[in-house]
Amino acid sequence: MPNTATIRPVRILGLDPGLRRTGWGVIVVSGARLSHVAHGVITPKETLPFADRLLHLFEEIAQVIAAHAPDEAAVEETFVNSNPTSTLKLGHARACCLIAPAQAGLTVAEYSNAVVKKCVVGTGAADKDQVGFMIRRLLPTAGPTTADAADALAVAITHANNRKAKALGQVA
Amino acid sequence: MPNTATIRPVRILGLDPGLRRTGWGVIVVSGARLSHVAHGVITPKETLPFADRLLHLFEEIAQVIAAHAPDEAAVEETFVNSNPTSTLKLGHARACCLIAPAQAGLTVAEYSNAVVKKCVVGTGAADKDQVGFMIRRLLPTAGPTTADAADALAVAITHANNRKAKALGQVA
Repeated sequence: MPNTATIRPVRILGLDPGLRRTGWGVIVVSGARLSHVAHGVITPKETLPFADRLLHLFEEIAQVIAAHAPDEAAVEETFVNSNPTSTLKLGHARACCLIAPAQAGLTVAEYSNAVVKKCVVGTGAADKDQVGFMIRRLLPTAGPTTADAADALAVAITHANNRKAKALGQVA
Repeated sequence: MPNTATIRPVRILGLDPGLRRTGWGVIVVSGARLSHVAHGVITPKETLPFADRLLHLFEEIAQVIAAHAPDEAAVEETFVNSNPTSTLKLGHARACCLIAPAQAGLTVAEYSNAVVKKCVVGTGAADKDQVGFMIRRLLPTAGPTTADAADALAVAITHANNRKAKALGQVA
């Protein structure tokens, strides 16, 4: 009989960074059980000065952390595309997603988009619809999610699976 | 006779972002007079997890702001190079330089490297030695500066000149 008394539920914040839209999702993992807590999308006003857009994103993430008290955070590694200006901007948005949880004392794991898709759908080449479908299957109480929020929940699920695998000694 | 009573000294923080080394410099501009306040370089430990390196950079900038109480901030626009991974990392470091002053309520101006060199040396193609030389000329009390701190002081001087030109209606 498994010693269920030692299974402590862990709350995980997943973040899918973007300057226009940053998806976030909080789940609880308790042994093999996943449950949905909350999700949303942060959309800093594009008319704000650039520094204020970043500050808005940073402060909204800090508010999500204050509201949902996650134990750990996981952030999607940004797709480095061929447009260096876009890549640079994504770097700025991603920094907000790393600093806010670090400031709250959370460990911050990072997962590539391919690893997240492979974990949630089974193939690194999955499209957004397949990710959304699996999120509805894995977290049936989540209700409707936008693509950004679904990606954020998928990052959180990836971290839940990875930390479980680590605990079992299956990954480095 | 000019009305010197209306010239309020303004403290300006200049930042030259980098993940390994972020230069900072604070000057005071009072009419046409520039004076040096302080400068330094922030070097987050490379052995820290990435999120903690960013947090360290962010918190050190916040400490510089708390210690020297600048009125305005100016940040160098990052050189977008051909290596997308480096560009992405620079974006992360640069975000720290934008969020920390914005959180302290400062306006944050941005200047390209070419504009900074043109302002301080007279040509956008100036090298680091020429920037260092001009910093010693313009801010003789600054003493020795590393290249990163000299660049940060140069950004602050550029902002000082630009805001003066703006006040005189010479730039948009």
